[in-house]
Amino acid sequence: MSYPNPESVTRVTSIGGGPIGGGWAAHFLARGYDVTLYLHDEAETPAFMAILETAWKSLTALGLAPGASMDRLRIVYDLAEAVEGAQFIQESAPENLAMKQALYEQLGQIVPADVVICSSTSGLTISEIQSQCATPERTVIGHPFNPPYLLPLVEIVGGEQSNAEAVAWAGKFYEIAGKAPLTLKKEIPGFVATRLQEALWREALHMVANGEATPEDIDIALINGPAPRMAVQGQCMAFHVACGAGGMATNLDQFGPALKLPWTRLEAPELTQDLRDRMVDGCNDIAGDRGFEEMAAKRDEQIVAVLRAIRDTA
Amino acid sequence: MSYPNPESVTRVTSIGGGPIGGGWAAHFLARGYDVTLYLHDEAETPAFMAILETAWKSLTALGLAPGASMDRLRIVYDLAEAVEGAQFIQESAPENLAMKQALYEQLGQIVPADVVICSSTSGLTISEIQSQCATPERTVIGHPFNPPYLLPLVEIVGGEQSNAEAVAWAGKFYEIAGKAPLTLKKEIPGFVATRLQEALWREALHMVANGEATPEDIDIALINGPAPRMAVQGQCMAFHVACGAGGMATNLDQFGPALKLPWTRLEAPELTQDLRDRMVDGCNDIAGDRGFEEMAAKRDEQIVAVLRAIRDTA
Repeated sequence: MSYPNPESVTRVTSIGGGPIGGGWAAHFLARGYDVTLYLHDEAETPAFMAILETAWKSLTALGLAPGASMDRLRIVYDLAEAVEGAQFIQESAPENLAMKQALYEQLGQIVPADVVICSSTSGLTISEIQSQCATPERTVIGHPFNPPYLLPLVEIVGGEQSNAEAVAWAGKFYEIAGKAPLTLKKEIPGFVATRLQEALWREALHMVANGEATPEDIDIALINGPAPRMAVQGQCMAFHVACGAGGMATNLDQFGPALKLPWTRLEAPELTQDLRDRMVDGCNDIAGDRGFEEMAAKRDEQIVAVLRAIRDTA
Repeated sequence: MSYPNPESVTRVTSIGGGPIGGGWAAHFLARGYDVTLYLHDEAETPAFMAILETAWKSLTALGLAPGASMDRLRIVYDLAEAVEGAQFIQESAPENLAMKQALYEQLGQIVPADVVICSSTSGLTISEIQSQCATPERTVIGHPFNPPYLLPLVEIVGGEQSNAEAVAWAGKFYEIAGKAPLTLKKEIPGFVATRLQEALWREALHMVANGEATPEDIDIALINGPAPRMAVQGQCMAFHVACGAGGMATNLDQFGPALKLPWTRLEAPELTQDLRDRMVDGCNDIAGDRGFEEMAAKRDEQIVAVLRAIRDTA
């Protein structure tokens, strides 16, 4: 199966108008697409419109694409009509496997096979979701981060029956559509971002359960400590740059023993030579020819900008 | 022991001039203090001056206190002279227990007992560090987050021999000095912020070890996903606000079962009624009389500001 050039897409359909589907519709409108929104029930319209109007303020502040307009939205209550003419479909139906399987079975019959369909699911696998679809090869995960009209991340992964072209197409399309796509190596529970967040969240719950911290302590610690730096550098590059010229190699060779310390309830993996090299090579690849002074100066400039932005809007 | 009013402090000593001690010196100078920096060796001076000059750019951009000046710094290579007249001491010597114990033994003899001494240690406990000090009751942990001239967090905790007045004094002093102090409930390894970050970091290492993600994937996921929101809301309030009017109660009652899912390698604690109530009550306390729409609107405004700040400095 070959898919049309993702640059040529002008019309998308969002299935579902809750916080996720509604957020997607708002995002695509802001990027200048014609958007058809499918709602299961007319009664859902006012809640969706409230989401759209809220999102539009932020999207306007971030900058709309030329020609972007809320007027390019059409709300449709019939599924067949909603997907007619769609060049891409973003599905954000409720997280119910039987419901999604039935939906994809139906979509398989009414949507041309060269239209990629991405699911926003966070808890189900696309292998399960696509199992009753007659054209499963063009179905892929495109998992956003909440709120989807603001946070750029979209995690992309195919299932057992997805084809590589559809997965690659989704990555290109999301990038053109102004998102930050991340195509995963494997179909793993929680994808990448949610796993990282979930590890932190469970550690927080353990601390509250053990009287070591309150929810307020957790949030004060994050907001004033790791989070602004993480927003600017992530975590691997934060450690790489913090260790000066030696970078991640110094971090792991010097602080590797700290992985055995009881600094969290999560046991670390064995720091094998292979893991060390993957971390070091990965950070060196990201750094490219930038020296650590240059990266540290950029980090500081960006953290200052973030702290000022938060303070000025407090 | 009673301690002088923390508002009256005008002169502080920073012991150590590496990235942590040097960062502290820069911070206190920017807040308008007279700062004495103790360096063990004159050869350390150029490296410290480079740290100070780098930090000063960011501190100036964030806004200096009236009268703040790099000219109010004195570098001293003799410990007794360095602590003379100090009304507060921030110790950032190398992370070597025997060395710190010897240092505190000496400080106990030469620093008046009503001067609070805080240690920047991240891996040692103050109970250990203070064990050979003749006046251990005024020694406390004051743990910053790197880079200490930028990130506001200071985690404060006393040891077995610290007195409650000294711990309280440190909290007040850091707040006056422009930091975001967090006084811990218990002396636990990694304190709060490092534990949270470490759980996330170990999950990242597991994913790289298992070929599920590269360092680049990890950082793309964080920067474009959870981190900007975490910088604005932390994690507890992020979930509280994301769940609408039901808040954290809805989060735990609806998504509680997800704590059993293999979304990280860290097992979650049992979601007891007590833990649930602590999380719910804690979030409601933080929210006060703000409704979720107001908090969601503020979240969006602040995330937009953060994303723009990062983009504009890219």
